[in-house]
Amino acid sequence: MKPKLSTITTDGKSLLLAYDQGLEHGPTDFDDKNVDPDYIQEIAVKGKYNGLIFQKGVAEKYYNCKIPLILKLNGKTNLVKGEPIAAQLCSVKEAIELGAKAVGYTIYVGSAHEATMFKDFQKIQEEAHKHGLPVIAWMYPRGQAIQDDKSKEILAYAARIGLELGADMVKIKYTGNIDSFKWVVKSAGKVKVLVAGGSKQSEEDMIKETFDIMQTGASGLAIGRNVWQHDQPLKMTAALKRIIFENKTVEEALKALK
Amino acid sequence: MKPKLSTITTDGKSLLLAYDQGLEHGPTDFDDKNVDPDYIQEIAVKGKYNGLIFQKGVAEKYYNCKIPLILKLNGKTNLVKGEPIAAQLCSVKEAIELGAKAVGYTIYVGSAHEATMFKDFQKIQEEAHKHGLPVIAWMYPRGQAIQDDKSKEILAYAARIGLELGADMVKIKYTGNIDSFKWVVKSAGKVKVLVAGGSKQSEEDMIKETFDIMQTGASGLAIGRNVWQHDQPLKMTAALKRIIFENKTVEEALKALK
Amino acid sequence: MKPKLSTITTDGKSLLLAYDQGLEHGPTDFDDKNVDPDYIQEIAVKGKYNGLIFQKGVAEKYYNCKIPLILKLNGKTNLVKGEPIAAQLCSVKEAIELGAKAVGYTIYVGSAHEATMFKDFQKIQEEAHKHGLPVIAWMYPRGQAIQDDKSKEILAYAARIGLELGADMVKIKYTGNIDSFKWVVKSAGKVKVLVAGGSKQSEEDMIKETFDIMQTGASGLAIGRNVWQHDQPLKMTAALKRIIFENKTVEEALKALK
Amino acid sequence: MKPKLSTITTDGKSLLLAYDQGLEHGPTDFDDKNVDPDYIQEIAVKGKYNGLIFQKGVAEKYYNCKIPLILKLNGKTNLVKGEPIAAQLCSVKEAIELGAKAVGYTIYVGSAHEATMFKDFQKIQEEAHKHGLPVIAWMYPRGQAIQDDKSKEILAYAARIGLELGADMVKIKYTGNIDSFKWVVKSAGKVKVLVAGGSKQSEEDMIKETFDIMQTGASGLAIGRNVWQHDQPLKMTAALKRIIFENKTVEEALKALK
Amino acid sequence: MKPKLSTITTDGKSLLLAYDQGLEHGPTDFDDKNVDPDYIQEIAVKGKYNGLIFQKGVAEKYYNCKIPLILKLNGKTNLVKGEPIAAQLCSVKEAIELGAKAVGYTIYVGSAHEATMFKDFQKIQEEAHKHGLPVIAWMYPRGQAIQDDKSKEILAYAARIGLELGADMVKIKYTGNIDSFKWVVKSAGKVKVLVAGGSKQSEEDMIKETFDIMQTGASGLAIGRNVWQHDQPLKMTAALKRIIFENKTVEEALKALK
Repeated sequence: MKPKLSTITTDGKSLLLAYDQGLEHGPTDFDDKNVDPDYIQEIAVKGKYNGLIFQKGVAEKYYNCKIPLILKLNGKTNLVKGEPIAAQLCSVKEAIELGAKAVGYTIYVGSAHEATMFKDFQKIQEEAHKHGLPVIAWMYPRGQAIQDDKSKEILAYAARIGLELGADMVKIKYTGNIDSFKWVVKSAGKVKVLVAGGSKQSEEDMIKETFDIMQTGASGLAIGRNVWQHDQPLKMTAALKRIIFENKTVEEALKALK
Repeated sequence: MKPKLSTITTDGKSLLLAYDQGLEHGPTDFDDKNVDPDYIQEIAVKGKYNGLIFQKGVAEKYYNCKIPLILKLNGKTNLVKGEPIAAQLCSVKEAIELGAKAVGYTIYVGSAHEATMFKDFQKIQEEAHKHGLPVIAWMYPRGQAIQDDKSKEILAYAARIGLELGADMVKIKYTGNIDSFKWVVKSAGKVKVLVAGGSKQSEEDMIKETFDIMQTGASGLAIGRNVWQHDQPLKMTAALKRIIFENKTVEEALKALK
Repeated sequence: MKPKLSTITTDGKSLLLAYDQGLEHGPTDFDDKNVDPDYIQEIAVKGKYNGLIFQKGVAEKYYNCKIPLILKLNGKTNLVKGEPIAAQLCSVKEAIELGAKAVGYTIYVGSAHEATMFKDFQKIQEEAHKHGLPVIAWMYPRGQAIQDDKSKEILAYAARIGLELGADMVKIKYTGNIDSFKWVVKSAGKVKVLVAGGSKQSEEDMIKETFDIMQTGASGLAIGRNVWQHDQPLKMTAALKRIIFENKTVEEALKALK
Repeated sequence: MKPKLSTITTDGKSLLLAYDQGLEHGPTDFDDKNVDPDYIQEIAVKGKYNGLIFQKGVAEKYYNCKIPLILKLNGKTNLVKGEPIAAQLCSVKEAIELGAKAVGYTIYVGSAHEATMFKDFQKIQEEAHKHGLPVIAWMYPRGQAIQDDKSKEILAYAARIGLELGADMVKIKYTGNIDSFKWVVKSAGKVKVLVAGGSKQSEEDMIKETFDIMQTGASGLAIGRNVWQHDQPLKMTAALKRIIFENKTVEEALKALK
Repeated sequence: MKPKLSTITTDGKSLLLAYDQGLEHGPTDFDDKNVDPDYIQEIAVKGKYNGLIFQKGVAEKYYNCKIPLILKLNGKTNLVKGEPIAAQLCSVKEAIELGAKAVGYTIYVGSAHEATMFKDFQKIQEEAHKHGLPVIAWMYPRGQAIQDDKSKEILAYAARIGLELGADMVKIKYTGNIDSFKWVVKSAGKVKVLVAGGSKQSEEDMIKETFDIMQTGASGLAIGRNVWQHDQPLKMTAALKRIIFENKTVEEALKALK
């Protein structure tokens, strides 16, 4: 069945709210408010995000069905050192039962465990597509072999692997430069490219970067900390949406933050 | 099916009797009395614990159905050195046939084998929930990467992983401090937090610590040696229950030990 | 189904004839007579042993159905060095088709491969019990972590692991001392303890040791070389049976050897 | 079912267009035109190739059914160092649903992971043949054990392994010499030998080499960069076809490039 | 089902033609004639061998059903160094569909991968016997632990392992000495012992050695290079058959070569 991307996009663009940091980084990313998944879910619902990214456990206990759920199917902690591998934590079947409209999967390309993640991805990709579920691949270059995980070459390669392996969207880092990122987006072909928000930066930097990103042909952002660590997450959301969906300028977008 | 936590809790609180030390530590923890599972089971029944924790072999040969059985599904000995891994020793199906009302699973977060335990946990969690069985995760930070397994940060991370992975309760160590443990409990969200009793300490220390623990929002204890190595295990049980279920003071609780 | 121990015991005691040395040690243990499984089987039948222990290949080609068959389900050679692991060599289903009344499984506790053997054991234990077949665990402490594989502590731990994992009988070494072995037997709880015969010793030593062993609460012996390397295996058998089943003295038992 | 080679051959000869470099090498092989799978597919259709080689993801999103599809079932990136292994990325079943007329599989003979790839190959070969699908094995000698991956001995061995394992075609490098490659082709027996085009070389060198290759009994080429990195890919295709299918001389073939 | 050995024996003796060297050693063993499986098959048919040993790929493309096929189910190249392991290359089911009357499997006893090969062997042995197919085990002592792979002790152990694991025939090296090999044969019990031909030697040495081998109780030879590298393979075959099946002297056998 052809994966239905329309459930998690608006006119082909997408703004997703990521909240898998509890597993990947631990509560060190959280404060008293955003440690609570309900707080995040409220932002996602009120901000009318295209999707909310949860791990299975959080979805089981908190998901309220008012926003498209994107279930992250694998993950790891940052406690283990050495070549990274993200274990499968939820089956596609379970994700569907939890109400997911898409599934997410991290692949650490360049890791010594790359082959294992490739094999696992193959199975979930095949099953997800059988049920018409889009697959979003977190394409993160990692491991001893990777010198610069934000270089044009390595990010274009990462995006391309997403295409070759059958992802429908890839979530990757930004090169920091419009020209080089155009090549990344082009390398991904028909696969939509979402940029990962990353750690918190100033409002202006974030909005400006988003503006640049949208010039490259990218389809949007999968953002977390820059929204839910923000004092006014809905204002930040509004600003981002002006850039992503309404082709506004940086100045016009920043007004939403006033 | 929604896991039925009511079978192993009282008003949302819980006091479990742990007896998986025969595998984890060996008979060195035992004396002539408590080496016998029937002795432990009698304490659990008479003390009206919310559940009794057995490995499969002990459950098969001793379980008398007079108390909720919590089957520990994995484990390891302390003979093997290096990065820890706990192998699956019982299937969910077998646990149900043995009469279990919940299942337990140890995850050594931070171990080089973390990914393997995550994957195994995913399968038992999914199957247990399909049958409405709560899953209790022993969240133990271990391995070269872990410097201090009782720090606020590491225990909050451990508890949170339990939430992200879909546990219904986590069994973890106490930070030794009310304020820091509040953050641990908060990080666990809707997952109930039970504190592991650990090795034997003085009655007063144990009761005082339990009192502190209950101030943090934790749901109770999974205790072993501090009860069944005690001369008067039922008195110790009574004292603990005053703290956990009756909101008594340390002094009132200690009276139960006279 | 409850495992039927009565098929391989007499009044709760048991004397088994072990013949898995061809795989574990090779023909170096054999001479022109006992290299032939038929010779061993004749001893087992005439000596009315409670069971005869064969590997699958030997059972397929030699087993005559005149004595309870105990099929050893795993094994290894002594050619490979390093941390030991015994691979599964026969399925429970196949054992049943070959006529087995019980199955045997070696676990090298303390080996770096402990987790693998634990997992494999779980599966065969579960399947064997489903068919009412008793499971005998060869509990052998091994590997770098083990300093003294005949110490009270380590053998008590090994026996206990047999109980925790769901064995019905354990086959272990003797500590060499009645008092310490009583603790081993006690640690095993409702699991019957059989002592492994080990390499050949003098008749008198063997009979005396067996006498001591039976004072500890152990259920008997799984013996091989001390019988089938003996000139008069049936006389040796008779002597052992006087001790194990008839509560005779060492002197009375030794008369059977005259 | 006997694999139908006729769908991907012409009179027993074959010219395939390979486009799995996006995964194996990354976009570094591409420019603005050939980064687009549609551009490649157009060359394949207009050039009437015997088959077009895609990975699953590219096939899912781009394949237009106008040319026989050869689905590459495994692969790896060039980011990971050490002994190479190519993970399975698509099942035979999925390949058939995508419309594949043959499947491809890389085996790095000599790699420390050789046994794993052999086992995986066995399964896909068996399933592909069950459905009448030819199997093309990329036989690439690699790893510490391989000194010269273009030697007569090593390439003859690689080709022969293809025969022994049940491939219908092998894709291998050229020894660079007619006499030695005749032995390679002979060693492959009834398995058809396609030479891998490799990195870009001058038109004249490529045509000359192809002429030599066809003298050895080889069945054709699986070519990529030398065609789609060419300014005039259809002219290059025409030149190659004159050699492969029409027994033309190098001079006659080169005229197609004018 | 009892394996039918009669299909690959004559009066309990057997002469098999081995042709799995293409995988194990590569074409370096071949010349222009014997590189062709049809040439070998013709020798086997005309020489009326008890069986012809092929890997799956060769059987699929060349087997003509005029001689009992013995399908070799696993194998490896000699390119990979380190502790040897032979991967499964064909299922029992596939072997049966290809017309096999028996299956072959190599076990490198003493290799660090021994346990893996034991486990794999268990499965194919069980399935082969279910279909009444004899199993021939290539028992090759290898790896760091093996000092002398032709010693009496090590070959007797190898043969015995074949019995313990359930092989019907073992193919092993010759000790070079009648007396010591008698012990090897005796250790194998009811398992038939075939000697591996090994690399080419003089006619007289080969015939003389075969004569000696048949004095030990062995059941015959599995021979390859000494026949198909011979100028007159059918004459060599005739000579061997005089020794193996007709109890002729070395002199009488050598006359067949004139």
